[in-house]
Amino acid sequence: MESRAMSDPPDEFEWIARGLAPLAEGAPEAFGLTDDAAAIPSRPGFDLIISKDAIVEGVHFLRRDPPDLVARKLLRVNLSDLAAKGAEPYGYFLAVAWPANYGWPERESFARGLAEDQAEFSLKLFGGDTVSTPGPFTASLTILGWTGSGRMVRRAGARVGDLILVSGTIGDGRLGLMAAKGSRVIKSYRQAAWLADRYRLPRPRLGLIDALREHAHAAADVSDGLIADAAKLAAASGVGIEIDLDRLPLSKPAAAWLAGAASPVEARIELATGGDDYEIVCAAAPENAPALLAAAEAAGIALAPIGVATEASGVRVFVDGLEVEVGQAGYVHH
Amino acid sequence: MESRAMSDPPDEFEWIARGLAPLAEGAPEAFGLTDDAAAIPSRPGFDLIISKDAIVEGVHFLRRDPPDLVARKLLRVNLSDLAAKGAEPYGYFLAVAWPANYGWPERESFARGLAEDQAEFSLKLFGGDTVSTPGPFTASLTILGWTGSGRMVRRAGARVGDLILVSGTIGDGRLGLMAAKGSRVIKSYRQAAWLADRYRLPRPRLGLIDALREHAHAAADVSDGLIADAAKLAAASGVGIEIDLDRLPLSKPAAAWLAGAASPVEARIELATGGDDYEIVCAAAPENAPALLAAAEAAGIALAPIGVATEASGVRVFVDGLEVEVGQAGYVHH
Repeated sequence: MESRAMSDPPDEFEWIARGLAPLAEGAPEAFGLTDDAAAIPSRPGFDLIISKDAIVEGVHFLRRDPPDLVARKLLRVNLSDLAAKGAEPYGYFLAVAWPANYGWPERESFARGLAEDQAEFSLKLFGGDTVSTPGPFTASLTILGWTGSGRMVRRAGARVGDLILVSGTIGDGRLGLMAAKGSRVIKSYRQAAWLADRYRLPRPRLGLIDALREHAHAAADVSDGLIADAAKLAAASGVGIEIDLDRLPLSKPAAAWLAGAASPVEARIELATGGDDYEIVCAAAPENAPALLAAAEAAGIALAPIGVATEASGVRVFVDGLEVEVGQAGYVHH
Repeated sequence: MESRAMSDPPDEFEWIARGLAPLAEGAPEAFGLTDDAAAIPSRPGFDLIISKDAIVEGVHFLRRDPPDLVARKLLRVNLSDLAAKGAEPYGYFLAVAWPANYGWPERESFARGLAEDQAEFSLKLFGGDTVSTPGPFTASLTILGWTGSGRMVRRAGARVGDLILVSGTIGDGRLGLMAAKGSRVIKSYRQAAWLADRYRLPRPRLGLIDALREHAHAAADVSDGLIADAAKLAAASGVGIEIDLDRLPLSKPAAAWLAGAASPVEARIELATGGDDYEIVCAAAPENAPALLAAAEAAGIALAPIGVATEASGVRVFVDGLEVEVGQAGYVHH
C-alpha cells in the first residue's frame, strides 16, 4: 500500500495502518501492508485466476449509497467473476481514490463493508493503493482465486447442441436500479426495497463453483445483461445461441412488474438486457444437464434452461415461439 | 475485460477488441481478453510478486500530459515496485476510467504508450476493466512479477549496522514537477526539459534486480520522497536510519538548482522529501556493499551510500555533520 499523491489527506499512512492493515491480518502474503508488494507462493497443480473490475460513483453505484455497501458490491462484482470461472476465492488487491468528502467515517464504513464480506467469502486483502481524487469516488479491485491446472471454466467452451442455462433470476438488477433511484415503477414498497437491495448487494454464485467445474462447458457472469453476456459467450465459443425469453427465470417482484407492463414482449427484453444481475450463464451438454442441475440444487441455487447453442453466430431471441429483434443496446449495455 | 457501466461510450467493446486485445497477444494467460478472468499457471519454485498503484489526472500527472506518457508512467511506477522487490516483470492488469473527452485518439495514444513500454520491459496485458467516469482520468494497474520462492527483497530486512544506499539521483522528480508546471525555478531551458521528462517518464531500476536479490537485506522504491520511503523501510525493519544529506546523489540540473538556492540546507531537504524519483533505497551489510556496488555498476546504475541503519527508530538527517529537523511533511509527501 503506497500513498504518493501530492494532495492526499494527511492521514493516508495512518488510514492504511488503522483502516486497511486489519483486513490483511492472517495473510502472510501481504506483509501487514507494510511492503511495496505481496508475494503469492506457488501452488503446484493450481492456476491462479485473476480478474479486475472498477467502479465509479454515479456510474456503477448511486451517489448516496452507503460506503459499506459500495465496498461489498465492489468485492461481490469481482467474486461473481470468480464464481463464473469455477475459482475458489483467495485474496484481493484494492485501489481507492477518495474524494475530499470521504473522511474517517466514510472510510471506516468502507473498511467495515470489506471486513464483513471478507469473513463471508473467506478472503484477505493482499495490498493495493489509496490516493485522493478531485473527482467522484473511484475504486478498482483485483481478485485472485484458484482452480486446478487448466480447469478454469472458459467463456470459449460452448459447443453446438449445448443447453444454455442461467442461475437465479434475471432482471432484478435493472428493476433494482430503477427502484434505488426512486422510480415508482415498482408499486409495492416491500418489493421495491427488495429489488434495490439486489442492485446494491449482488449475490455472487460461488455455490456453483463445483457444479460448473464438473459439468459445464463454458460460463460467464451476467453483468452487462443476459443477452449481452450470452452474446460474448457465443462469440468466444464460435457458436450461436438461441434464447427463449418465455423461460426467463423471474423473481416475484419482476414477475409482478412484468404482469403490469404495457408491452410484455418489450418488458421481457428489458429484463434480459438489463445489467447488474451477477447471475451465471453457462453451457452444458444435454447429457450433463441433469448432473449440473442436481449439483446446483444441492448448493441451493436454481438453474433454468433458457436456450441452446447452434451452428449460427450471435444471439437469437424468441418470445411465444416468434423471433424478436433486440437492438444493439441489447448487446452492449449502456 | 468487462464493460458494464451504464454510461460507457458505445464503442467500449470495440475499443477492447481493437485497442487493448493486441496488447495481450502472445499471452495465453489472457485468452485474448475475451474471458472474465486470466489464468496464471503455477510456477513451482517461484513466488508471484504483485503490486497495484493508481493514478489520477491532476494529482499524479498534469492535466495536459500526453496520454501515451501517462500510460508509460503508470506502467513504470508499478515496474519500480517490482524492481525494488527484485522481481522480474511478467504481466499486468489495467483498469481505466475514461472521461468523456477521451475519444479514440486519446485512447489510441494511451494504448500506444502501453505497447511501447510492454516491448521495452517484456510485459503483456492479462486483463482488466474499462469504464467511463464523469470525473478526471483515473487508472490503476496491477503488476505481476516473479522471484524465486521466498526471495522477494523485503522492506523489513534492514539490520543495525547496514549501509543505506540509493540509486541514481534524488530530487529530479520534484524539480521536474515544478518544471513541468512551467515554474521558472530552473533557469536553463534544456535542464528544465530534462527534469520535466524525468517527472513524466520515470526509469524503473530493473537493472538492479539481480544485485538487490543477491546482496541487499532490504529495499523499497523512492516514490513518496527519499526520507519518507527510508522511514517506512526503517519502521518495517525495526531499525533507525541516519542519512547524510551531503551525500545525496544529484543530477547536474539539481546540483545547479541547489547551487543557486537561498538556503542550501532547506534546498537539500526539499530534494530529499520530494516524490516521484522512482529510485531504489536499499540496505546492505557493509561487507556486502562492494559486491552490491559492483553488480549495480555492471548494470550501469550508480548506487550512492548515504547513511547507516542504527539501533534507534525513525530517520535522522544530517547536513555538514549537524542534525537537521525534517518536519512531518518529510515523512508523508503531499
